[in-house]
Amino acid sequence: MPDTMTDSILIHNCTLLTAPNAPLLANATLLTRGETIVAIGTTDTMQQADTTQATTIIDGQGKLLMPGLINAHNHCAMTLFRGMADDMELATWLSKYIFPAEARHVNKEMVYHCSKLAAAEMILSGTTTVADGYFFEGQAAQAFIDTGLRAIAAHGIIDFPAPGVPDPARNLETAIEFLDEWQGKQPRITPAIFAHSPYTCSAETLQRAKRVATERQVPFFIHVAESSQEQAMIQAARGTSPIRHLNALDLLDPGTICIHCVCLDEEDLALLAKTQAGVVVCPQSHLKLASGTAPVSAMIEHGIQVGLGTDGCASNNSLDMFREMDLLSKTQKLHTLNATSIPARQALTCATINNAKLLGLGNIGQLRPGYKADLILLDMQQPHLTPCYNQDLLVYGAGGADVHTVIIDGRMVMADKKLLTFDVQTTMQEVRRLASQLAGARH
Amino acid sequence: MPDTMTDSILIHNCTLLTAPNAPLLANATLLTRGETIVAIGTTDTMQQADTTQATTIIDGQGKLLMPGLINAHNHCAMTLFRGMADDMELATWLSKYIFPAEARHVNKEMVYHCSKLAAAEMILSGTTTVADGYFFEGQAAQAFIDTGLRAIAAHGIIDFPAPGVPDPARNLETAIEFLDEWQGKQPRITPAIFAHSPYTCSAETLQRAKRVATERQVPFFIHVAESSQEQAMIQAARGTSPIRHLNALDLLDPGTICIHCVCLDEEDLALLAKTQAGVVVCPQSHLKLASGTAPVSAMIEHGIQVGLGTDGCASNNSLDMFREMDLLSKTQKLHTLNATSIPARQALTCATINNAKLLGLGNIGQLRPGYKADLILLDMQQPHLTPCYNQDLLVYGAGGADVHTVIIDGRMVMADKKLLTFDVQTTMQEVRRLASQLAGARH
Repeated sequence: MPDTMTDSILIHNCTLLTAPNAPLLANATLLTRGETIVAIGTTDTMQQADTTQATTIIDGQGKLLMPGLINAHNHCAMTLFRGMADDMELATWLSKYIFPAEARHVNKEMVYHCSKLAAAEMILSGTTTVADGYFFEGQAAQAFIDTGLRAIAAHGIIDFPAPGVPDPARNLETAIEFLDEWQGKQPRITPAIFAHSPYTCSAETLQRAKRVATERQVPFFIHVAESSQEQAMIQAARGTSPIRHLNALDLLDPGTICIHCVCLDEEDLALLAKTQAGVVVCPQSHLKLASGTAPVSAMIEHGIQVGLGTDGCASNNSLDMFREMDLLSKTQKLHTLNATSIPARQALTCATINNAKLLGLGNIGQLRPGYKADLILLDMQQPHLTPCYNQDLLVYGAGGADVHTVIIDGRMVMADKKLLTFDVQTTMQEVRRLASQLAGARH
Repeated sequence: MPDTMTDSILIHNCTLLTAPNAPLLANATLLTRGETIVAIGTTDTMQQADTTQATTIIDGQGKLLMPGLINAHNHCAMTLFRGMADDMELATWLSKYIFPAEARHVNKEMVYHCSKLAAAEMILSGTTTVADGYFFEGQAAQAFIDTGLRAIAAHGIIDFPAPGVPDPARNLETAIEFLDEWQGKQPRITPAIFAHSPYTCSAETLQRAKRVATERQVPFFIHVAESSQEQAMIQAARGTSPIRHLNALDLLDPGTICIHCVCLDEEDLALLAKTQAGVVVCPQSHLKLASGTAPVSAMIEHGIQVGLGTDGCASNNSLDMFREMDLLSKTQKLHTLNATSIPARQALTCATINNAKLLGLGNIGQLRPGYKADLILLDMQQPHLTPCYNQDLLVYGAGGADVHTVIIDGRMVMADKKLLTFDVQTTMQEVRRLASQLAGARH
């Protein structure tokens, strides 16, 4: 962690994007102190008094400085299942591959190493904050601490035996123990609650879980309206839509984040707008699992706060938020058959400002004095980023592999494409070992 | 160019994928001589006699060796227009931005430098062959020669004033002059004809152009059935579908490559199958321009030869064929609402074997003794490619930035992510200079 009083990073001579709709600023300078951005200006006008304090100086020549991306939905530990079972129907994929693999191969060790691997992939591709939801979530939180990532770590709740929670009757209790341990423990980690879905949690479980989240003032996540199968199940069981079911249980408010929301009707949209619940879409997962396309343009027209996430990488299979922004824009154009839908800067807004807001992290997502120093530098001197007319190139041209330097909470976690916080080779070896066990068990 | 008698590259200790559906071969060795693959085996079994001839030895530890990707549709020079005008309706985009920019800014110098930039981007991202279609195509062909890429270079034909062809009455003549100059000139360059579309070329122009292509035994490309607007125009003008219009003109045969084919009905599909015309789809361009989704699953069920391309990067905006394969699979799953549609290996087949076949290049697209040595090595020791259960990871996880080494026609054109054939910094500078002129002219 940087020393709040003395550590200071100066980045100069760069092209600067402070927010998705801001003009690109040439020959710019940014200064951090401790975990905070303290000054932004052009290299010429920035006062020497400000910049001579810097303990680290980065030459940003040929690079673009922008806010770190936020991944608002992930199941980090599922990196172990990346590519284990592709091109499957959702039901087959879950019941024949994912659930059995989770039952046999998810343990504390696995969650720690596989979450660390996800953190490595995310940092390397320019993500500085993740909202994770899984089991053994304390191990995930520890992995985020050890890698330098900022995170919302949400403990899973489901009415079935789950990793670390063999008795579903103890699901809420386990999550409360997690909150007890992690609230206020580490400034970069926000613990939270993640209820799996309206078809895997009873009404009572959902209400009790939401009540805890409200009392503790932590975010409440839930997968909802992901597929037409879910829609049919909730219709059969509850006689209504998944969103209206949640609303009837009083679950929708600004502290609730509804993940997926592919299958919505006008009444659902109006409810989400009225209750100010947040929505996070995962376009690549929706494509790969053939779920459909979330009506993001309509959500935005309704004034709903829409964020963006990758989902777990078993259903994607990448954690690169640049790919996700590109696909958010492009899939909406297909969905509306209108090429002006979700322009590039709107996608960038979803992945930064909107995600920060709906996760309750008001001081990230933009570069402003007083905001957290969560920033990334991209190497723009590459053929595929040439020419650069404006920042739309970040969405339609750039990829995670273009990220050169990453600073989180004022700390350099990656420089020259190398992770500085931990030994990623060891992490990859550990995950390969776990993957061999998994592949061996299946043969 | 490698010396056919003596130059020989040995790649050993790698993981080898010879073709999309082949098993991954561990601890493999491949040997080239001149422009050809001469032997493939495991490092243990490969006879020393074969391998001691090698003049260059590459240690493939931690790397995956696979066929170079083929981009079956591009307008390379349009790199100048990358990001110049995003998020626009097709008609506005073409009439207000692309056509005026082409009228003012396309010249020999622009086509040479901008095609060279495209070649750099393609080689760096693992493409070893491109099918290009544009004007001043001799300059494009020269750019491909100078960068080491293999190419089909197709001269554009359109019944409007075009770059280098101010008088449409000379459009076919200009293309014939191009064929005269380039047929048999350079073994890596196959000249061809590219008729713009059924709505920008008269029936007579199309028939004359196809006749020349048939006589000269060169590929004949045409944009067709790209959008519902085109469909409506051809219906109004010809009383039929774009594909049936081409068929009525006797244009469909195995030498014709129909680009896009988004809007097809059953009769169109049957005609394409019966005539054995090739189809190339460009999923990202179809998304970004809100054209729709080409019915690739249906095409394959009909036995149509389906290939894959990026389209020009003004409508994508990337030339990375790994992204394109990923999107081919994923958009088909959305289109059919079936997660088993176009599995990863099918997408890989489209980008290699199918593209080679429909472009008439029978000896590329797979790694086999006797085939051309067009190969790429990917660095697999990275978090986002961990774990690796099988080659599906190449489609859903890998990206162009993972390519480490590229060999085309037996020649090392890129090693350790650096281009060896030309100075890409100079090319980027030239394109930036042209882009400043363009941006200046618009303000």
